[in-house]
Amino acid sequence: MQCCFGIGSCATSVQTSNYVRRMKVLDNWKINDPALAHHFDRSNMVVMIDQRPLVTRSGQSIELVIGSTENICHTLADYGLQASIRNSVLLDALPGEDNEFTPLFGCSLKTLEPPRDSGMPADEPRKRLAGVLGGSLINLRFAMLTMTSELHRNWVAKMQTLAKWSNIYNYCPKCSSSLRMRHSKTGASCSLCDRVYYPTISPVAIVLVHDESSEHCLLVRHSGSMNGVYTSIAGFAETGESLEDAVRREVAEEVGLEVDNVRYMGMSQPWPMPDSSLMTAFVARASMNDKLDIAPDELQHAGWFNKNEVRLAIQCTDADVHLKGMLSNKCEPNVLKYVPPSGAIAHRMITFWANS
Amino acid sequence: MQCCFGIGSCATSVQTSNYVRRMKVLDNWKINDPALAHHFDRSNMVVMIDQRPLVTRSGQSIELVIGSTENICHTLADYGLQASIRNSVLLDALPGEDNEFTPLFGCSLKTLEPPRDSGMPADEPRKRLAGVLGGSLINLRFAMLTMTSELHRNWVAKMQTLAKWSNIYNYCPKCSSSLRMRHSKTGASCSLCDRVYYPTISPVAIVLVHDESSEHCLLVRHSGSMNGVYTSIAGFAETGESLEDAVRREVAEEVGLEVDNVRYMGMSQPWPMPDSSLMTAFVARASMNDKLDIAPDELQHAGWFNKNEVRLAIQCTDADVHLKGMLSNKCEPNVLKYVPPSGAIAHRMITFWANS
Repeated sequence: MQCCFGIGSCATSVQTSNYVRRMKVLDNWKINDPALAHHFDRSNMVVMIDQRPLVTRSGQSIELVIGSTENICHTLADYGLQASIRNSVLLDALPGEDNEFTPLFGCSLKTLEPPRDSGMPADEPRKRLAGVLGGSLINLRFAMLTMTSELHRNWVAKMQTLAKWSNIYNYCPKCSSSLRMRHSKTGASCSLCDRVYYPTISPVAIVLVHDESSEHCLLVRHSGSMNGVYTSIAGFAETGESLEDAVRREVAEEVGLEVDNVRYMGMSQPWPMPDSSLMTAFVARASMNDKLDIAPDELQHAGWFNKNEVRLAIQCTDADVHLKGMLSNKCEPNVLKYVPPSGAIAHRMITFWANS
Repeated sequence: MQCCFGIGSCATSVQTSNYVRRMKVLDNWKINDPALAHHFDRSNMVVMIDQRPLVTRSGQSIELVIGSTENICHTLADYGLQASIRNSVLLDALPGEDNEFTPLFGCSLKTLEPPRDSGMPADEPRKRLAGVLGGSLINLRFAMLTMTSELHRNWVAKMQTLAKWSNIYNYCPKCSSSLRMRHSKTGASCSLCDRVYYPTISPVAIVLVHDESSEHCLLVRHSGSMNGVYTSIAGFAETGESLEDAVRREVAEEVGLEVDNVRYMGMSQPWPMPDSSLMTAFVARASMNDKLDIAPDELQHAGWFNKNEVRLAIQCTDADVHLKGMLSNKCEPNVLKYVPPSGAIAHRMITFWANS
């Protein structure tokens, strides 16, 4: 199987030289089913099995395995699985021959269970399949938190989101007739009432709250999160409000504080969990003298930390590249030990503040 | 009927003194149907009839009419229309008696047609009804573009969005069973598979493109827009991309340019047309030497304009408070005469750039 591990840098060079052409090609493929189907056999593909992306590890780097769609389809067929344009989503346009582009598809599959009398562990078939496909399968959240390439992370986010959305949108919510899904999975139209539905994107405001001196920031631990992992306050924007309104409301709801000086931090990120979020990063100011009033259904703990404490947690997180310490869950639950790993926007927000 | 025209300033004072309490009350009402229903009879209401908000004009100011739900329901019943919690959406929490809050509902209705043999013009019943309700009805887009209160604009956006969404989400897209809609219209759950759906919010990147010197900016005229009205490039963010990616992609798709220096302008705005957008404002840099390649299905024209030309268009727009000149559509189609009116985020973006 042909694997193209240098695709991150390929795509970057496309972005500067042929970026506009690539965007126009993609724009056409999104809605033009025959054109996209025409390219399927000569396209490339990345795979997710049981919601686990297929990756290779090289040193500390984790990257998606990109193979030819034809080869991947043959290998999957040997294992009783079918990859076709029906269960694939359009991820990107990659440079191909003759200065043309070829589609990159993402295919999300479920493995077959091992035969009951085989005595084989349940995850054995997918492990074997991953090996034959030239990689290994990792947990979706782990992939998003630890993959270093933003391009590959965004492909994973897109693959998971479009696969999940296209799996849910079978019927028209208005009239319950069946929906016709585009090959790209970027839209579905009702066969009866002609309404068009698009993949849901839920804007999320995530906010680094600091005090008047900016020497302290407020971090929280969510219910059910790993022991010792603290992060920024975040929540979905709601109908009828701006992102800045959402920042103020979420801080009020989660910790009972009023913030001002709400400013965008210059970064946003697609995130596929729980569904399809678009994280938008803000910083805001609150008073450490105001009483914290924590929403008990959302948070385990919230506290103010100074820059030294936060820098130590960042160091501890960055040293734990494979998250072994974090996932062991052995530290004190409500003592700051880690921040979210480098793939999360919260990591970049907290690091930017701590170094400023 | 009791009308509270000072509600803009009431709400502002609540926001500073009781803001956190108000957000927590609203957070509960969104999901707690019995609690919200309990308050219905003693709540306040704003009304939209045939997608036209009920407003009063006082000088150059246009504001929503806010009345007691009880009175409005009685008046509507006299005209054969029923307003209940079933066809109302939760908009806000307003200060009530005893330091408590009361809900503000929005009710979106369709008028009955006049009797066939009455000889009455089709819009006569809704005109009469509006008069009895203490206001007049104006076009939704006109309301969004010209209302000066951000709070009232956002209520209109929320009312239109939640009314439309709750009218569409009757059946579960996954299994086609019927959905149970929350009283607030902020969510609906499937009666069979328990999936929960939330009102769609579509993030939009809108971008003021300027040249290297920032002495010129690129404005576009959309297909089907009023003659002489130019605005910024905008488009929906897509799955798997950041807002900044969306800016770059939209500019490439619409005018064939590559931009850099993409920065947030510190403002975002909910907008109910065509459906439920969340406009996020960016500025970006392109080269005036690069060739414009306009998407013919989206744009009529695009051009670079200097600050004097843009300032003149802003003056012309601001002088046309009731949009009489703009709506007359009498000027040259592809000559810059107007920018979007003051209620649109594009107005603030273009003005900020022109004055900087």
